[in-house]
Amino acid sequence: MEFYSSQISNLIEQLSRLPGIGAKSAQRLAFHILNMSEQQVAGLASAMTNAKKNVRYCKECCTYTDDELCPICANMRRNHKQIMVVENPRDLAAYEKTGKYEGVYHVLHGAISPMAGIGPEDIRLSELMVRLSGDVDEVIVATNKNLEGDTTATYISKLVKPIGIKVSRIASGVPAGGDLEYIDEITLYRALEGRTYM
Amino acid sequence: MEFYSSQISNLIEQLSRLPGIGAKSAQRLAFHILNMSEQQVAGLASAMTNAKKNVRYCKECCTYTDDELCPICANMRRNHKQIMVVENPRDLAAYEKTGKYEGVYHVLHGAISPMAGIGPEDIRLSELMVRLSGDVDEVIVATNKNLEGDTTATYISKLVKPIGIKVSRIASGVPAGGDLEYIDEITLYRALEGRTYM
Repeated sequence: MEFYSSQISNLIEQLSRLPGIGAKSAQRLAFHILNMSEQQVAGLASAMTNAKKNVRYCKECCTYTDDELCPICANMRRNHKQIMVVENPRDLAAYEKTGKYEGVYHVLHGAISPMAGIGPEDIRLSELMVRLSGDVDEVIVATNKNLEGDTTATYISKLVKPIGIKVSRIASGVPAGGDLEYIDEITLYRALEGRTYM
Repeated sequence: MEFYSSQISNLIEQLSRLPGIGAKSAQRLAFHILNMSEQQVAGLASAMTNAKKNVRYCKECCTYTDDELCPICANMRRNHKQIMVVENPRDLAAYEKTGKYEGVYHVLHGAISPMAGIGPEDIRLSELMVRLSGDVDEVIVATNKNLEGDTTATYISKLVKPIGIKVSRIASGVPAGGDLEYIDEITLYRALEGRTYM
């Protein structure tokens, strides 16, 4: 991009390294940023550096936070005896958006994957076990419904059951609005297996 | 997003204001940024603020640059007697990527649009006229092939022709690889009108 002056091509280059942003979007974003007010650009830049500087794992659930506790763990109206285990903060966000879950979370920051060389010690499992020495009724495993997520779920259940705490796994089935003819066979089979009587 | 701590939700909010970045991508980008090294984040942030702080219009062609002249206007091997007029720096970049154009550019930063209340004085037309008092052979109008772009082209040709400088307009036609049956009628008609004899 030798037709852009150096700072503009540097900006485009940096933006194009972000996930899901190709060369054309990076160019579009860069020119948008150049058209923003200096104050707005400073706001965006400092939002990045501040969040990065202050971010850490929540002392309880290991999600990202800039406080000692995340807003959910700090909320005394949540049910702290029910812990939903998720792979990452985006999955936590997805369940929060349902507005139907009143318990708390535990973020593993990954899933066990022998293929990728990720073992139980590489995710935040020991932090979960520490929490279970407290007053906990149920662990709901909401890792992804794939090989890694299922492996992680099985591993967690083997660790948690002997302590005498209930372990559950979120259901597999046909998604809401799902048209049966377009659903894959594994999902259809699991929906059959998990049928509930009316 | 009260389940994110304040700095994280601020970062997501700021990112989601960028064009083409929805709520989900903003969240994905934010977590990606939190996972980058502190040095990388600082690099991205300062690329933004530096580019914004130092960006200005090229003294000649009005494209964005952080120098007095953009790399193209500063290049003495380009043909400075041929000026291609484009609406914005992205269009300049698109033509540069063809590698086939050896002249220089003029960036209008918009197009005349009576509907949107954008008149000739709102785009960088007077800067173009100043350049034409120098040694110029041809003005190639490469504004978009739509109402605004065509209006702007006509306006420019009326200004430039009386000075005795050639004015041309980029061709309309079927795009390379274009399958005729999928091309709109206006394009097909223009391709016929603009046919060249073999």
